[in-house]
Amino acid sequence: MNETEFVAALRKLPLHAGARGLEDDCAVLTIGGETLVLTHDMMAEDTHFLKGADMADVAFKLLAANLSDLAAKGAEPVGVLLGHSLGREDARFLEGLGEGLKRFGTVLMGGDTVATTGTSTYGITAVGRATHCPVPSRSGARAGDGIFVTGPVGRAMLGYEGVAEHLAAFNRPLPRLAEGIALAPHVSAMMDISDGLLLDCWRMGWASGTTLALDSTAVPVAARHRADECMRWGDDYELLFTLPEGNAPPLAATRIGTVRPRGAAPLLLDEVALADPAGLGYRHG
Amino acid sequence: MNETEFVAALRKLPLHAGARGLEDDCAVLTIGGETLVLTHDMMAEDTHFLKGADMADVAFKLLAANLSDLAAKGAEPVGVLLGHSLGREDARFLEGLGEGLKRFGTVLMGGDTVATTGTSTYGITAVGRATHCPVPSRSGARAGDGIFVTGPVGRAMLGYEGVAEHLAAFNRPLPRLAEGIALAPHVSAMMDISDGLLLDCWRMGWASGTTLALDSTAVPVAARHRADECMRWGDDYELLFTLPEGNAPPLAATRIGTVRPRGAAPLLLDEVALADPAGLGYRHG
Repeated sequence: MNETEFVAALRKLPLHAGARGLEDDCAVLTIGGETLVLTHDMMAEDTHFLKGADMADVAFKLLAANLSDLAAKGAEPVGVLLGHSLGREDARFLEGLGEGLKRFGTVLMGGDTVATTGTSTYGITAVGRATHCPVPSRSGARAGDGIFVTGPVGRAMLGYEGVAEHLAAFNRPLPRLAEGIALAPHVSAMMDISDGLLLDCWRMGWASGTTLALDSTAVPVAARHRADECMRWGDDYELLFTLPEGNAPPLAATRIGTVRPRGAAPLLLDEVALADPAGLGYRHG
Repeated sequence: MNETEFVAALRKLPLHAGARGLEDDCAVLTIGGETLVLTHDMMAEDTHFLKGADMADVAFKLLAANLSDLAAKGAEPVGVLLGHSLGREDARFLEGLGEGLKRFGTVLMGGDTVATTGTSTYGITAVGRATHCPVPSRSGARAGDGIFVTGPVGRAMLGYEGVAEHLAAFNRPLPRLAEGIALAPHVSAMMDISDGLLLDCWRMGWASGTTLALDSTAVPVAARHRADECMRWGDDYELLFTLPEGNAPPLAATRIGTVRPRGAAPLLLDEVALADPAGLGYRHG
């Protein structure tokens, strides 16, 4: 099975109402008078990092990727659980994890440690507390809404390629937690851009039943002459969000397009319909 | 690092108060007037199952192992998140997971799917709602308490060896959810026996600052002539608990010993002090 087939099959299992049909990156759990947001993200050797990677970066990034999913829900972190494969540079992994926990003001709640043979896989479950209800989803983009991003895309790509000023963007990404909390009361839809701007816009359009019409010249990119690649590379962790027409974002953000009624495809780039998500971003599996 | 060193290093990271110093199998999170219990358990190819294993059994058992941690806290399952490595018998994995979810009356909340090379690792995060507070821990065993188990140990061992009537005990273990809920208001300490009775008794004694004195002849075992092995094999998922002196368990259970003030070791087996946990059960890493 590939990932798409697998997730389709998962949807046939008994699902929690807060799983939102597995269309979203997080589960939403109302308990007592509070709303929790839960997410689980993994990183696997060879797929998400190479054998020679600094395991401190791997741990930091795994934590950041999980917290970025919370950020997209306007949730503040409560804590994380770690699933750890022993046997790589475990001490470095812990250094990076510890730096991330302190940097993002969160804590370890528990987890599990296993001995593995062969390649290693790491997982983090992040638990957050929603600061605004309803919790933003990726499915709320309505025709007429403005489409925004919190910052440029493509920095992680340049960091991956070794460009000194962008190394941190690739190795030590920062989840936009404060931005997510500030945006949550205002947005009609929100998600983080983890797999590439175009792919994530396609997904938001698909989930919302609308078309996200982007103006590529408006998209803030880290390298203008490579705008196409910047819009397709993942790992930037900026927030993508939509606001009802006429609303200005409560923080610095760039408008990159407008939501339209669903046309030929969930995504329109410079008036070209992009119906097939293949090639729009980074997909695992 | 081995697992012991790794967990010791983890304890130096910023910890959630509900992580109980990582001494317990679950984190306890009080939120919105409710108390949640969270746990994350993994299974890795070669370490926890062999390449030829039926992936439906692997998924069922992974779910059961996680829910067993909730059972030991007297928690009822709310839902689970799945971390899945694509590439083995994924359809069979989903069948087993679906059977388990239905059997145990719980639901999928979300998760992540990754492509991996080499061996596969699977993780589940289980979320439960505590039915009794304070939530039982493994550290509450007090001198004078009676020590009990909910059923025989060693059945999983015989199942692993291919004994027909015990195959299910190994492949499709059942978390003692109802028993855990019934016991939670009464116990002074509780945990599930996932890594072997002797090792888990040692851990309870260690965490409680007492000595668990066991009478081996009282321990219910699946094969009396192999009692030693039965007490050291894991995967049985019975509950181990202690009750204040004079209290009878509210369900069928077998008394196997008495808690004493801490003596020479956390565990005393037929009056022999067992100070070293090595050799008492199954330890990964």
